[in-house]
Amino acid sequence: MEDKVFVFTIGTAGSGKSYFTSSFSDYLDFKKIDHAIVNLDPGADFLPYEPDVDVREWITVDDVMEKYNVGPNGAQIVSADLIATKAEDILDELDLYSADYVLVDTPGQMELFTLRSSSEIIIQTFGRQNCVSVFLFDPVISQRASGFTSMVFMYSSAVMRLNIPQIPVLSKADLLPEHDVKRILTWSRDTDALYDDVSKEKGLSRDLFHLLREAGLIRPLIPVSAKTGEGMDDVYDIVQEIYYGGEDLESMRF
Amino acid sequence: MEDKVFVFTIGTAGSGKSYFTSSFSDYLDFKKIDHAIVNLDPGADFLPYEPDVDVREWITVDDVMEKYNVGPNGAQIVSADLIATKAEDILDELDLYSADYVLVDTPGQMELFTLRSSSEIIIQTFGRQNCVSVFLFDPVISQRASGFTSMVFMYSSAVMRLNIPQIPVLSKADLLPEHDVKRILTWSRDTDALYDDVSKEKGLSRDLFHLLREAGLIRPLIPVSAKTGEGMDDVYDIVQEIYYGGEDLESMRF
Repeated sequence: MEDKVFVFTIGTAGSGKSYFTSSFSDYLDFKKIDHAIVNLDPGADFLPYEPDVDVREWITVDDVMEKYNVGPNGAQIVSADLIATKAEDILDELDLYSADYVLVDTPGQMELFTLRSSSEIIIQTFGRQNCVSVFLFDPVISQRASGFTSMVFMYSSAVMRLNIPQIPVLSKADLLPEHDVKRILTWSRDTDALYDDVSKEKGLSRDLFHLLREAGLIRPLIPVSAKTGEGMDDVYDIVQEIYYGGEDLESMRF
Repeated sequence: MEDKVFVFTIGTAGSGKSYFTSSFSDYLDFKKIDHAIVNLDPGADFLPYEPDVDVREWITVDDVMEKYNVGPNGAQIVSADLIATKAEDILDELDLYSADYVLVDTPGQMELFTLRSSSEIIIQTFGRQNCVSVFLFDPVISQRASGFTSMVFMYSSAVMRLNIPQIPVLSKADLLPEHDVKRILTWSRDTDALYDDVSKEKGLSRDLFHLLREAGLIRPLIPVSAKTGEGMDDVYDIVQEIYYGGEDLESMRF
């Protein structure tokens, strides 16, 4: 398995994880790059792709609700925790595929994966050095400067917790007017601009933003669109850089 | 409604929001302080308290699953968004109570409330100046230095998004051995100690931690326990300080 690269898709509920996975798979198809898709979301209702390995073979939120007699909240937690017990089975199934890339779609709520220990067990089992993640900034939340900053903190939380290189992207860029995309990308590159716009929404210290920049929390975003395929090549190039090029891994981790 | 103080309980799934709400209510009972409890979680299976106003009167995740023909993931998002439409109804029902304090228990997954616009609408409707939140640090995740730091970022995300004073507490302190509680409290007060312990787990820059401290992201935690009632008086005192004392509000917001 040493030569497989696992690309996790991480993001808050509704940020477009499954559509990104689908579109990135189409891109790899187009490039004729062997890959497989793993669905790790036991609560997925509908997937816009055909998973090669699907954790729902073993665990579904509906089954957990029935079997453990818990409601939807509890069942999501239990089933997200249970997926860790299937990490080895997933690897075994992946052995059937000659895939250089494995795209891993994660559970609907970000905190069910990143904050709970299942993510740690899965990354450990897959091999930490083979894992990278694409973190999706929700476009609607990122439209306002304070929402964008809030996403920066969510992203930082995932970086700190997962301890694998993470690529921050602006998801569903096609949904937003072009000038909104431009403004968000500017915020991700220019903390002064971000500060100016946040301070129009609320009173905040300029120092905070300088320090966030100094701390490396705010990093340039790549705009992507599952609909138009925009940005898939950029994401692919960065993944390649991380594994085969000279990309400084520490800079992807803080 | 101007004289009511709304105390939201915020935290990731499983961090003990409902038990905190219940225990804080017991404390207010003991102090003979009029209060009401609002449950905002449309997916709550079981509540350890009797809510005075319950959003499940109008919306439940189970109903949404059936009515909109969506699975548990989608239904949680839809129902968490729908609660915003009930903000006025909740206020109307609260008018029946002579409550100085209103304890508000929020949806199971943190991101369903803090990141989505329902929180903004609800806080706006209740009156931003009357709202404060208690943010629960999950004790199991906070046991490791990198997990604690990850929680700091989740907390910062909520501070930035909600724009109301937030009181960070270490939840379920009774669950942890005493020396673990001590270590976590030390991390929340001494960034050098936090850095030393994080760097045992992974390679990280010391600068990052200095900057997080400088930025005011890391703030002293109050240990609380719903089981023993520990810390409820401290939380109450801080809420009082915020509304009636000289507490510097900006320092609660960054």
